Amino acid sequence: MSGDFADIPFAAMPDRSASADTFVPLTELPEWERFAREARTCAPQSDALDLIEAPGLVLDSSGQRHSPALMAAGEALLRARDFEAQRARLLAGEVVNVTEDRAAWHTMLRAPDAPPRVLAERERMDAWVRRADAGRRWRHVVHVGIGGSDWGVRLAVSAFGYAGTWREVRFVANIDGHAIEGGLAGLDPRETLVVLVSKSFTTAEPLENGARAREWLAAAGLDPASHLAAITARPDRARAWGVPESQIFQLWDWVGGRFSLWSAVSLSTALAVGVDVLEGLRAGAAAMDAHFAQAPLAANAPVRMALAGVANRSVLGHGSLNIAPYDSRLANLVPYIQQLDMESLGKSVDVSGQPVGVPTGPAVWGMPGTDAQHTFFQWMHQGSDGAPVDFILCREADHHWPAHHRQLLANCLAQREALMRGKTLAQARAECVAENMDPERADWLAPHRVHPGGRPNHLIVLPRLSPYSLGALLALYEHRVFTQGVIWGIDPFDQWGVEYGKVLARGIIAELDPAAAATRDAPAPGHDASTRHWIHRLRG
Amino acid sequence: MSGDFADIPFAAMPDRSASADTFVPLTELPEWERFAREARTCAPQSDALDLIEAPGLVLDSSGQRHSPALMAAGEALLRARDFEAQRARLLAGEVVNVTEDRAAWHTMLRAPDAPPRVLAERERMDAWVRRADAGRRWRHVVHVGIGGSDWGVRLAVSAFGYAGTWREVRFVANIDGHAIEGGLAGLDPRETLVVLVSKSFTTAEPLENGARAREWLAAAGLDPASHLAAITARPDRARAWGVPESQIFQLWDWVGGRFSLWSAVSLSTALAVGVDVLEGLRAGAAAMDAHFAQAPLAANAPVRMALAGVANRSVLGHGSLNIAPYDSRLANLVPYIQQLDMESLGKSVDVSGQPVGVPTGPAVWGMPGTDAQHTFFQWMHQGSDGAPVDFILCREADHHWPAHHRQLLANCLAQREALMRGKTLAQARAECVAENMDPERADWLAPHRVHPGGRPNHLIVLPRLSPYSLGALLALYEHRVFTQGVIWGIDPFDQWGVEYGKVLARGIIAELDPAAAATRDAPAPGHDASTRHWIHRLRG
Repeated sequence: MSGDFADIPFAAMPDRSASADTFVPLTELPEWERFAREARTCAPQSDALDLIEAPGLVLDSSGQRHSPALMAAGEALLRARDFEAQRARLLAGEVVNVTEDRAAWHTMLRAPDAPPRVLAERERMDAWVRRADAGRRWRHVVHVGIGGSDWGVRLAVSAFGYAGTWREVRFVANIDGHAIEGGLAGLDPRETLVVLVSKSFTTAEPLENGARAREWLAAAGLDPASHLAAITARPDRARAWGVPESQIFQLWDWVGGRFSLWSAVSLSTALAVGVDVLEGLRAGAAAMDAHFAQAPLAANAPVRMALAGVANRSVLGHGSLNIAPYDSRLANLVPYIQQLDMESLGKSVDVSGQPVGVPTGPAVWGMPGTDAQHTFFQWMHQGSDGAPVDFILCREADHHWPAHHRQLLANCLAQREALMRGKTLAQARAECVAENMDPERADWLAPHRVHPGGRPNHLIVLPRLSPYSLGALLALYEHRVFTQGVIWGIDPFDQWGVEYGKVLARGIIAELDPAAAATRDAPAPGHDASTRHWIHRLRG
Repeated sequence: MSGDFADIPFAAMPDRSASADTFVPLTELPEWERFAREARTCAPQSDALDLIEAPGLVLDSSGQRHSPALMAAGEALLRARDFEAQRARLLAGEVVNVTEDRAAWHTMLRAPDAPPRVLAERERMDAWVRRADAGRRWRHVVHVGIGGSDWGVRLAVSAFGYAGTWREVRFVANIDGHAIEGGLAGLDPRETLVVLVSKSFTTAEPLENGARAREWLAAAGLDPASHLAAITARPDRARAWGVPESQIFQLWDWVGGRFSLWSAVSLSTALAVGVDVLEGLRAGAAAMDAHFAQAPLAANAPVRMALAGVANRSVLGHGSLNIAPYDSRLANLVPYIQQLDMESLGKSVDVSGQPVGVPTGPAVWGMPGTDAQHTFFQWMHQGSDGAPVDFILCREADHHWPAHHRQLLANCLAQREALMRGKTLAQARAECVAENMDPERADWLAPHRVHPGGRPNHLIVLPRLSPYSLGALLALYEHRVFTQGVIWGIDPFDQWGVEYGKVLARGIIAELDPAAAATRDAPAPGHDASTRHWIHRLRG
């Protein structure tokens, strides 16, 4: 941990090898056997309501397999995994990212009792934004990050700035030059602030895109430095790159990219929709943190979602999870959760280095309803296996057309009901007959109109889309993901799979360089025939 | 078929029940057994190049299982499915949508010898756009469609207008009132054209959103009629709704929503990026149609992709397909293919009404690289099962930073290579040791850095992102989907699963109405407990 944080009460380094030595693979636990058996034999949906009224939202698990026996088995499984101690370690800032020897203390960033250094940095950023607001500075903000440092800001800006903001915010993430070209096109450089986000200040995408923006500012006859801000854990590198000290904000070393929404990465959010939004997000997340820490397991929303997720994935075999926010403002919630979930749980080796033995994190995908209904719900209803769905809706809208909102809510409830209930062959045939079809055609067509039903879902209802409820929602997903990591016994905070491709890419970049073509006839050996072919053909 | 089309040489109605009678379920075909056996025993990737130079693009299947024996088995399977005759029926406009008794003749819309009525309607639309261009009319276009009538326009506009267009185009699809509120916010009504798309002119989303736009125009003191255009198969209804005759364009009855990019739905595309783009798209698609019709099966790009898709899904068990365009301009290609593929193949009953017997269409999802690398590629590399990937890239960029493009291409090739090749435990351990780790820690950490590899992929390379190459790419996917439908024996052109939820929604809309609350205490029976609960709680 950085010496800068002597005032933050990080726990002592745990003995990692000791915990690895005592780790029991999931499939050797009798509690796993019991949980899997109960999940398999439980009815797909019961007619019993299963609600949790959590801070900022209501979780309805009626659409998942649920029974007292399954819940008891889930609690026993969590005990066998020492879940409560693991949760305490997470919330106390101990080293939970064991393969990288780090804490994952994003909850600290939103804690009411955050340490003075965190509060002071937050205050410094807020004051900077308030000064910019008072001076009506920066009509355009170009946010240059990627992955975790990109999706959170996109999410908050589209959620609370969906009808436009006085500052126009553009997002540039991809190394593809068309991204930065399009991101800068048409902006007035004199009125543009470029916000660079890179924890290490070495990530190719933000640094290359940032360099193009710096050139663009200089070409307009401006001093780029005054138009640049940076969010990083390496302020020294940002200074060397040309960002003035007063416009560099700290990204703490103990906060992962996929939790960086809670850090100064939200500078662009504050510029677009106001610092009060950040405060609301933090308050909602902190309330969910407290719920996660304190609520009994059976009434603990993240825990219940995690148990349902493990049952769906590792017992019932569902390979993917669909996120269906019935709110057009939440389109970016899908990639946000996708990144959070898949980067965390896209691993198949447990902390002892052994294969987990059951399928782990699903593919996460989705789209706001009702668009999704006209895009892929056909597949959800009648495809070979469909997918579990997390439906998300807001009780109240922020527009003035009640009939639109009624239709939106009804569509959400109806799709959910259709996925649960299905439609039998007899019902389908009766429908055909009711449409005056002749019996032979009705017999032939009816099977095409059958819906198997029984598909699992959660329904999450927010009172309305406030910063508080969105903050609670994001923390719900974070803790759901953490809890699944504990059950599977994997480290949800590392990302070794992201590194390997970077190393290979560095080699291929050099081989694609025309200078390499001039000095060497063929690319370096070691590639397969197709990669060799394309390096040769794309060179130049 | 509409009497309007007496001049179009539609084939006579086939005897549907006769073809159903002779239909053999897939799993009863000895050719299926053979194909499945060859696919299972074939090596994941060979070091032999496997390229098809098709119109507008190159398809590299080296990353799929491929061998002469597997290809021969695939050809035999296609013969057993009477593929060549089915393909001929599709391209001749015969009834291939058997459950709805309709043709699916989108290829006709781009055929060089399209019938006079099609050409005349196209010319009428082009002339209308040219007049608007000449008069510098409509600074803002609000495109109001959903699903198939929305994604195609979004795709073309972001592909060719990525750095901005002189007309600003907004898209409003969702019934969520925030969508139309945000879509109209800040626009000048006097300069705004609202383009409504609905084939039946009864779809709730475009009609409700269109009504809000009409009110907005009227509230500005304008005559809404002159600001409205409509694309529909029911011009009578559009006229009755208030759209002037001269601004109504024909959506042919024999063109499905997911193929409507080829119709007058592209009016908004033409207004944004020019009618020449439409011409290029059609030329590329027509060239791919000819390739699909004529190329030998082993060198036929859509056919090869279909065989690989069936092997991955129905033999090797991959539940999803990832689309990874390494081009930020193609972000909307993902939902476009998602809709095309999942609405077409999200069915599990064959044309004889029996279960297909093997898993059919996968979940289709994705994101442009390199964003995807920072979002979910962790899961692709090290998750339990990953997903087959279609990598798509352009040899030449349209920006002026060769180093960016080199990095983009290198990242694509590197991710693909990593997914194919993997990294063994011995390699991972050697890496750890090379990083000066102590042997005990290296032993412990190495398993976390293993990549299994062997994951299937296609690589599709366009010379550059021209309308011609994009048109060819879209037709490639259309025909790949059609061919998979033929192999599985399903009707890829219907969408019964979309209808059921609509019916349920109508009932719940009425139950949510406060007027209903006033007259009835409880919602209609027949709902499950959770749906009942939420109807009660959300009412008002």
